[in-house]
Amino acid sequence: MKAAAKSRTPLTVFDQLESEVRSYCRHFPVVFTKASGHTLWDRQGKAYLDFFAGAGALNYGHNPPGIKEKLIEYLRQDGITHSLDMATDAKETLLTRFRDVILAPRGLDYKVMFPGPTGTNAVESALKLARKVTGRTSVWSFTNGFHGMTIGSLSVTGNRRKRNGAGMPLSHAVSMPYDGYMGPDTDTARYLERLLEDEGSGVSLPAAMILETVQGEGGLHAASESWLRRIEALCRTHNILLIVDDVQAGCGRTGPFFSFETAGIRPDIVCLSKSIGGYGLPLALTLFKPELDIWGPGEHNGTFRGNNLGFVAAAEALRYWEDDGLRRVVEAKAAAVRAFLEHLVGAYPFLQGEVRGKGLMQGIAVKADGLAERICSRAFARGLIMETSGPDSEVVKVMPPLTIGEKELEQGLSILEESVKDCR
Amino acid sequence: MKAAAKSRTPLTVFDQLESEVRSYCRHFPVVFTKASGHTLWDRQGKAYLDFFAGAGALNYGHNPPGIKEKLIEYLRQDGITHSLDMATDAKETLLTRFRDVILAPRGLDYKVMFPGPTGTNAVESALKLARKVTGRTSVWSFTNGFHGMTIGSLSVTGNRRKRNGAGMPLSHAVSMPYDGYMGPDTDTARYLERLLEDEGSGVSLPAAMILETVQGEGGLHAASESWLRRIEALCRTHNILLIVDDVQAGCGRTGPFFSFETAGIRPDIVCLSKSIGGYGLPLALTLFKPELDIWGPGEHNGTFRGNNLGFVAAAEALRYWEDDGLRRVVEAKAAAVRAFLEHLVGAYPFLQGEVRGKGLMQGIAVKADGLAERICSRAFARGLIMETSGPDSEVVKVMPPLTIGEKELEQGLSILEESVKDCR
Amino acid sequence: MKAAAKSRTPLTVFDQLESEVRSYCRHFPVVFTKASGHTLWDRQGKAYLDFFAGAGALNYGHNPPGIKEKLIEYLRQDGITHSLDMATDAKETLLTRFRDVILAPRGLDYKVMFPGPTGTNAVESALKLARKVTGRTSVWSFTNGFHGMTIGSLSVTGNRRKRNGAGMPLSHAVSMPYDGYMGPDTDTARYLERLLEDEGSGVSLPAAMILETVQGEGGLHAASESWLRRIEALCRTHNILLIVDDVQAGCGRTGPFFSFETAGIRPDIVCLSKSIGGYGLPLALTLFKPELDIWGPGEHNGTFRGNNLGFVAAAEALRYWEDDGLRRVVEAKAAAVRAFLEHLVGAYPFLQGEVRGKGLMQGIAVKADGLAERICSRAFARGLIMETSGPDSEVVKVMPPLTIGEKELEQGLSILEESVKDCR
Amino acid sequence: MKAAAKSRTPLTVFDQLESEVRSYCRHFPVVFTKASGHTLWDRQGKAYLDFFAGAGALNYGHNPPGIKEKLIEYLRQDGITHSLDMATDAKETLLTRFRDVILAPRGLDYKVMFPGPTGTNAVESALKLARKVTGRTSVWSFTNGFHGMTIGSLSVTGNRRKRNGAGMPLSHAVSMPYDGYMGPDTDTARYLERLLEDEGSGVSLPAAMILETVQGEGGLHAASESWLRRIEALCRTHNILLIVDDVQAGCGRTGPFFSFETAGIRPDIVCLSKSIGGYGLPLALTLFKPELDIWGPGEHNGTFRGNNLGFVAAAEALRYWEDDGLRRVVEAKAAAVRAFLEHLVGAYPFLQGEVRGKGLMQGIAVKADGLAERICSRAFARGLIMETSGPDSEVVKVMPPLTIGEKELEQGLSILEESVKDCR
Repeated sequence: MKAAAKSRTPLTVFDQLESEVRSYCRHFPVVFTKASGHTLWDRQGKAYLDFFAGAGALNYGHNPPGIKEKLIEYLRQDGITHSLDMATDAKETLLTRFRDVILAPRGLDYKVMFPGPTGTNAVESALKLARKVTGRTSVWSFTNGFHGMTIGSLSVTGNRRKRNGAGMPLSHAVSMPYDGYMGPDTDTARYLERLLEDEGSGVSLPAAMILETVQGEGGLHAASESWLRRIEALCRTHNILLIVDDVQAGCGRTGPFFSFETAGIRPDIVCLSKSIGGYGLPLALTLFKPELDIWGPGEHNGTFRGNNLGFVAAAEALRYWEDDGLRRVVEAKAAAVRAFLEHLVGAYPFLQGEVRGKGLMQGIAVKADGLAERICSRAFARGLIMETSGPDSEVVKVMPPLTIGEKELEQGLSILEESVKDCR
Repeated sequence: MKAAAKSRTPLTVFDQLESEVRSYCRHFPVVFTKASGHTLWDRQGKAYLDFFAGAGALNYGHNPPGIKEKLIEYLRQDGITHSLDMATDAKETLLTRFRDVILAPRGLDYKVMFPGPTGTNAVESALKLARKVTGRTSVWSFTNGFHGMTIGSLSVTGNRRKRNGAGMPLSHAVSMPYDGYMGPDTDTARYLERLLEDEGSGVSLPAAMILETVQGEGGLHAASESWLRRIEALCRTHNILLIVDDVQAGCGRTGPFFSFETAGIRPDIVCLSKSIGGYGLPLALTLFKPELDIWGPGEHNGTFRGNNLGFVAAAEALRYWEDDGLRRVVEAKAAAVRAFLEHLVGAYPFLQGEVRGKGLMQGIAVKADGLAERICSRAFARGLIMETSGPDSEVVKVMPPLTIGEKELEQGLSILEESVKDCR
Repeated sequence: MKAAAKSRTPLTVFDQLESEVRSYCRHFPVVFTKASGHTLWDRQGKAYLDFFAGAGALNYGHNPPGIKEKLIEYLRQDGITHSLDMATDAKETLLTRFRDVILAPRGLDYKVMFPGPTGTNAVESALKLARKVTGRTSVWSFTNGFHGMTIGSLSVTGNRRKRNGAGMPLSHAVSMPYDGYMGPDTDTARYLERLLEDEGSGVSLPAAMILETVQGEGGLHAASESWLRRIEALCRTHNILLIVDDVQAGCGRTGPFFSFETAGIRPDIVCLSKSIGGYGLPLALTLFKPELDIWGPGEHNGTFRGNNLGFVAAAEALRYWEDDGLRRVVEAKAAAVRAFLEHLVGAYPFLQGEVRGKGLMQGIAVKADGLAERICSRAFARGLIMETSGPDSEVVKVMPPLTIGEKELEQGLSILEESVKDCR
Repeated sequence: MKAAAKSRTPLTVFDQLESEVRSYCRHFPVVFTKASGHTLWDRQGKAYLDFFAGAGALNYGHNPPGIKEKLIEYLRQDGITHSLDMATDAKETLLTRFRDVILAPRGLDYKVMFPGPTGTNAVESALKLARKVTGRTSVWSFTNGFHGMTIGSLSVTGNRRKRNGAGMPLSHAVSMPYDGYMGPDTDTARYLERLLEDEGSGVSLPAAMILETVQGEGGLHAASESWLRRIEALCRTHNILLIVDDVQAGCGRTGPFFSFETAGIRPDIVCLSKSIGGYGLPLALTLFKPELDIWGPGEHNGTFRGNNLGFVAAAEALRYWEDDGLRRVVEAKAAAVRAFLEHLVGAYPFLQGEVRGKGLMQGIAVKADGLAERICSRAFARGLIMETSGPDSEVVKVMPPLTIGEKELEQGLSILEESVKDCR
């Protein structure tokens, strides 16, 4: 009887007590209780296949058992949980392993900053450092970039609705056209070059440019490798720092650990968060070239920059990167997803679809208003969790855990196809 | 041999890999490995008494066993870890308990927002909401207030060095004199009133005022209850929203759950973080009156706003508030600390000391440059972890876990006295 | 008949064609055609006594004959009229005479900048220079200061209604309490000192402070000489530039040529306009210490910075300053005005009046809403032109030409008294 | 002897007393004493032909006799000189004639605002009004636009060096690519359209766009009529106000009274200054559609907004526009100039020249660094006053009075050719 009541109004508590700002629970209106790998279960015991992966925070799936054991062990032995930026065993292990597994093999020499446990902390610290190092105030961001909701990060975020949420003008950032923004025939990097060279452009020399190589929230636009190299070269020529926000596209989401590896660029500053925590635990890193490390002690801080459960999980998660196995797996699955999405676009012309993205963050941009949301809604009804991307929620986004089984990947894609059919 | 080497240079890894921004590890230059209640241990097994409490994030001490068991159990059963703002069992429990244990008994009717898992997220969301609701851009903050390191929060933070870290001008905030700022004879609330009433004051009507009732980082200045009521009344008269940042002073740090309860005021928006997580886990809440809840879905978001381990720990920690036991214990200990600090000031005139603060966030402001830091450094050598507060690090700050034993509290105060003597 | 029609609706053309922003013509709803000395005439031939002096631009009265002859002569001989910042005879004469008559005798060594022909140009250039010299962005202004309507000047202006006219937040300026703002018992200079010294004040070290010694538009508050010296000393201690906006209070309005002479201070930058043009012609000067003259050629410019009719008139007007005669006359008249205003306040308690101001810019602040405007309106009906001052138009302002005859001064004051009586 | 000394160091007084910001006197290092029509004379009696026209403020030449007589007469009869925004005879005449001669025949229905006597006052008032009307803060300006030196106008000005003069970040304006900025193949209006339509563009809906139809200071780029119509249409679609800054290009400089007439657009707001004063006297007008006239009385003001000598001269100057004679003359001369400049570019390939501009504001952009300045310097030596335009002073600018004789125009062009030859 009570269960029945709950079943009818599962979200009563949330409706009554939680702010209207809540969002995903409106698309997935059930109470989740359990999760493992690529599966979530709701209170009624119904299972859902996960093509969402915690918005990119769960690259290794839900609750991976190896990490889970480490966490329980750490809790059991009263490992220190909260340490601000005191030195702890757990942090030392993470730093050492990050150097040995990630930085050294790639010939990268970055200092590591713990800016607070969220992506926006990483972005805010990157922007502050870039301004401090260069003595300039302006930062160039790109159309449809997404970097976070605190005022510094929001200033470099493209989404108009989110920007309006600031309730005040956002300053010291200039939005530039991303690769392809003005169509295939216009080289947007050339436009940036012109603005920099022209003493009458009305645009100041910026401290930095900040970009995602694939725009996870902004519609899955992926920059070409040549464009990324053009941008890096422009930055070098004009002594502008290049910040890559790899919060969503990093940690293997596009194949390699860093999304920019294939382009052969070396950003001055890199922001990592989401899957760096390994287990969905709050964690973020800001990486930068040693010569930029002019911070004074405590000049940027935050209460939760020493989240040791996050350190433990992150260190364990780096084991995935001790060889290039995961990268190859991702690339193979990415090719399969690509092929399937191209098939959908071809087979269902009503979509007026365009395949976008890279690695295991791909999707289909569709034309009709609300169509992408309807498809995701149908998918949810069929037991598949997917979200949209893009300023008008116009992209159906396929973002499973990297570790999803091939069978489950296929299964999810089939559900997607069925959901597309539902919407014809 | 290896251990010996480690002992000589315990922080080599941090020195080499971590950014210069690291701070506490410079004051406490050991590697911590374990913690329980009011004790931390370093790698060599040395124990330290904790008068720091994770900068206020560990009101219930390190790794309280009841919460620990809940966390392990939740991990064991694959409770969902990362959920963004999807509905989960763990969140429902927290919401329900927060209403039943905290809000309802106090006659408070706040909506709860999960703005991301750190204090600065709570502050940023509070500022955004206040601006959105009022349509005004400016916010009044107070001298020596501290609200966080992201640009929105930093704009309302007083510390000049931290502000300079922004690398750009901070706008849309005006710093006002806190209670007592112009000496005991000047009523700063009257000044604010004049600025509001005078059509030529050069200061716009603000969206909100944001304040701490006790300034945890800014030197332990505590506002009088009458001043708080004056400020609230000013806000009511001019339709300004009152935001209380209870990130450090809340969760019982001054006695009652909310630090503002004794003043009898009802802020429009309240920011909670630090000890709300119960176990030192990243969590923050923004509370506001229901009529202010004009957020659109997802208008503010963040990857880690669904940190379910934090929900589990926070819900369990609320058990401390099911009766007024903890409050009474804190008030008793606070009185003891007050007496002891007054004794120190009297007994050691070289300190030129002034006792400040409230509850279990009290301290002594001392005159000589660097003296407070020397005292804390001596305390550390004697096995007591303490930090300073204030723009010139001029305050020795006593902030033990609320749950510290009476004996250990006395023991810590004795070490403090010895450390003071060391610095004569 | 037509004349009669005109007389009934004299402002039809203005009502139909001119923007609603027009203001004085609403208080003085006649069409003026002619003026001389302290008298204006309207189209019907009615004469008005001038206690307004072009808002301070007509210190030497309307159309002083000596200057008029120079202007006509200059026009006749085709002297160059418009020269930007090319060198002209007329400008050379002005520069030389300004040095010989004003600067040298006062031991002042200022470079002269022609920033464009209005007060706000002078202020904008002063602010730019101060920021450029110090490398700081923030400027401190004072409650009820008035400095102009362009965005830079408006940012340092106190009036809320005018500020709102910007249609956007005004940044990089902080409003500070002027002398006496918090009552006679609070030393506002001490507050500024505290903000500067306190590393947690939330206020950055400013590039400059800008102030008027008497606030012409903001209510005729006059700073004490000791307060001015305190402010100058604060500026020296903290390497802040002191800008005195002498646009209204300068050129003898308070007695000496510069209003700050009696205080014995030496501002780093001085803004002059209004009566510097001598004949009501657009002209402004920015003066600054030679070591601040780091402008690059043309870094600030403007089409009308070479208004040669203004140069001719200004040079001729400086003859008034070849001895201290005018100063002594002003001081004598100022004393008479003071005595009369004190009499009014005493004799008409319903005014609840307070005498304010200095020199020949004095007035009475009255309590009741709209009363000052009613008094001025009655005065106009009686043939006396006066305006109000203050954020609520609460001050009746007496500002005749410095050259007004004693008899006419008395006559005007009598009309003022009659007008006061009218409003009982 | 003394004369000889003067002749050797003519600018001593200026060097000693005037700020380093002085600029034109460095290019034309003589003291000018007299001017008439298209001729200036220096102190030594040397005559110069004027291809500069007071940077556009002297469209009718120096000291046109008809206006001169009116001015002398007005001075003689003690016409009111300085009136703020009181109603005067002189202003009434100007308003009436502006309506009858300019607005009515063109079917334009604008309210007239007197914002202060300089172009930057007109621009500042236009920007304020646009923000006030729309409630939006951001304004779009264009690469290489020039609108003035006060902070509001400077924010919408492209020149980097002038912008840096602000000493602080310039906000609330976004620089957009002008027509042709990205080469002939890229439609910059399409880029603007994309930014407006894309909800993720990172650019807010602006209050207004502000542009010059020909960029007088920014390099003589002229917008095509079709582009202007595209921009106007974009503004209409998105409810953005269109501001045309016709300060330099207006008053017949390109042929018609308003430079935008040929494109058939109807700006919402128009800024006029420079030659509107008729005689080089400071004057500016802001015109706007009646429905935008939501100013409150005095919400924008300024001491010299009632410069009656300017009104007298301006009213008289409008006689030039009582028929279309001047327009036809300008168009004929413009064609001659065009042909001559094209000839120069063809005949002197070392220039690598490009003819730019429109009407009697045309010029040649040359490639080599400093070449344009060398040509103008040679021209001055040969008795011709010309200046450069463009962010790198790369354009030789031909801008004679509109009233220049045909013979003198030819003569000036010949001197220009000789000067070009000098620089081979």
